[in-house]
Amino acid sequence: MACTYCPESSFGSFSSDQVIPLFLPQCSECEFCLSPKTNLCYKNWRNTQQGVLADGTSRITCKGQQVYQFLGVSTFSEYTVVPEYNVAKIHQDAALDKVCLLGCGVATGYGAALNTAKVERGTACAVFGLGAVGLATVMGCKAAGASRIIGVDINAEKREVAKTFGVTDFVNPNDHNKPIQEVLMEMTGGGVDYSFECVGNVTLMRAAFESSNPTCGVCVIVGWTENNLMLVGPKDLVMGRTLKGSFLGGWKSVCSVPKLVEDYLSGRIMLDEFVTHTLPLEEVNHAFDLMTKGKSIRSVIKM
Amino acid sequence: MACTYCPESSFGSFSSDQVIPLFLPQCSECEFCLSPKTNLCYKNWRNTQQGVLADGTSRITCKGQQVYQFLGVSTFSEYTVVPEYNVAKIHQDAALDKVCLLGCGVATGYGAALNTAKVERGTACAVFGLGAVGLATVMGCKAAGASRIIGVDINAEKREVAKTFGVTDFVNPNDHNKPIQEVLMEMTGGGVDYSFECVGNVTLMRAAFESSNPTCGVCVIVGWTENNLMLVGPKDLVMGRTLKGSFLGGWKSVCSVPKLVEDYLSGRIMLDEFVTHTLPLEEVNHAFDLMTKGKSIRSVIKM
Repeated sequence: MACTYCPESSFGSFSSDQVIPLFLPQCSECEFCLSPKTNLCYKNWRNTQQGVLADGTSRITCKGQQVYQFLGVSTFSEYTVVPEYNVAKIHQDAALDKVCLLGCGVATGYGAALNTAKVERGTACAVFGLGAVGLATVMGCKAAGASRIIGVDINAEKREVAKTFGVTDFVNPNDHNKPIQEVLMEMTGGGVDYSFECVGNVTLMRAAFESSNPTCGVCVIVGWTENNLMLVGPKDLVMGRTLKGSFLGGWKSVCSVPKLVEDYLSGRIMLDEFVTHTLPLEEVNHAFDLMTKGKSIRSVIKM
Repeated sequence: MACTYCPESSFGSFSSDQVIPLFLPQCSECEFCLSPKTNLCYKNWRNTQQGVLADGTSRITCKGQQVYQFLGVSTFSEYTVVPEYNVAKIHQDAALDKVCLLGCGVATGYGAALNTAKVERGTACAVFGLGAVGLATVMGCKAAGASRIIGVDINAEKREVAKTFGVTDFVNPNDHNKPIQEVLMEMTGGGVDYSFECVGNVTLMRAAFESSNPTCGVCVIVGWTENNLMLVGPKDLVMGRTLKGSFLGGWKSVCSVPKLVEDYLSGRIMLDEFVTHTLPLEEVNHAFDLMTKGKSIRSVIKM
């Protein structure tokens, strides 16, 4: 079995192989997997969002009680059971404590720029939120040849690391006494070509949208939030703006993640720079605290 | 002077030429006109929306009082004064009482399908509202090779004329006791590839958006409304939907409208079928009544 678009990809048994678990499956057989237009997988995505596998069950129990599998993979455990189309077989020499980031956050941001927005050479981009997803988006904009990449974050400590990833202008909304979208409109003389919201905040989504050029700007929503407040209206769109969403950066998971691992191994994408902390599994909640407080980019488990 | 993208186009003096006045100018010199990404024209569009010409004045007076020029052209008058980049010089044999429709409505819908959505062969489309703009959108979907074109209108009388333009399935929301987006999702097994709102009703925009495939559907807002109620949220977009606006169907006005006239003359696009009534100028308000009541598609002035 192989992906229609990547005949060289391998789907199959993985005994003793190195793999990255994937919250987004790729069965390679369903209508979605056979379409070049989406990276969703029809067979599974509904179930995996419910904490169970494709067949509606979980394979993990504790003292006789069912344990649900977070996003269908249960990444915060030492052992798990998942279908083969929920894992990517990767290069055996890849360091798992780095390439694990390609199972979601970094792939998501990087792909949002390259696959969803399709950023073009010489364009101006703005990335709202410079956590791992935002910095990966910056990396994608840079890889696509954007000439200006404006990073927006209220955490002043992000300034230097953002430049490492390719940000050309760092803007802290707290340094301005007007809405950040007005600041960006003035900086760019009419709005950026591509804007990305990488936080999951509806107000910021609106700001990112308004920062894009009203006649041809593209705003990509990368962040996720349960708060589904309405966002835009016809007046915002009529002159030609585009608003779109991105899911795992548009990558078809099983066949694309191994290629991203290869890109890391050959130096085409950065991963080491995302890892600011290494902690044992027991400290997983501390790792979340560090992230939500803006003290880390990503923490990984000590291998 | 000529358009960057159409060297054969002619901009210049038009004494005794046949022209179509254009609410959207194309100066061919500004940043927007030089960009392939937008059909807006920077020099003028702000002013022309205010009822004055590019220089901020109107050239029409009545008994010493300034008369504003509707959309910068004043189409409901027998004489007008407009800049040369607000008129398209067209084929001298074209019947003005037909090709006048290419100055806005028909060009808008046709281009929304071809230029903004970029409808592809074999896809499923839904067009909400089957007035002139909606029917022109249907015509664009058909020209692009869509295999299914669902026309949606609460006016049952539109069924037959819609089929003339290319609608394969006519759906009247009044015939169903569930939201029309649910009807379309069921009809298509998951949503259309491209949906178009051609009315200017925020509720219908939401319905059109929800009728598009959640993983890769594109919804184009063609209708206009002053009611800028918020429309969508991140949950609607995350899996990969796209929402975008269209202005004059994405056509660069001065250079494209003459080509559309040629397409009409050679039989590639329909115009005669849009004209249901011919009235004298004094009955312009009656023409509007016919349109708002769904009794006409378009009325033109008797030449």
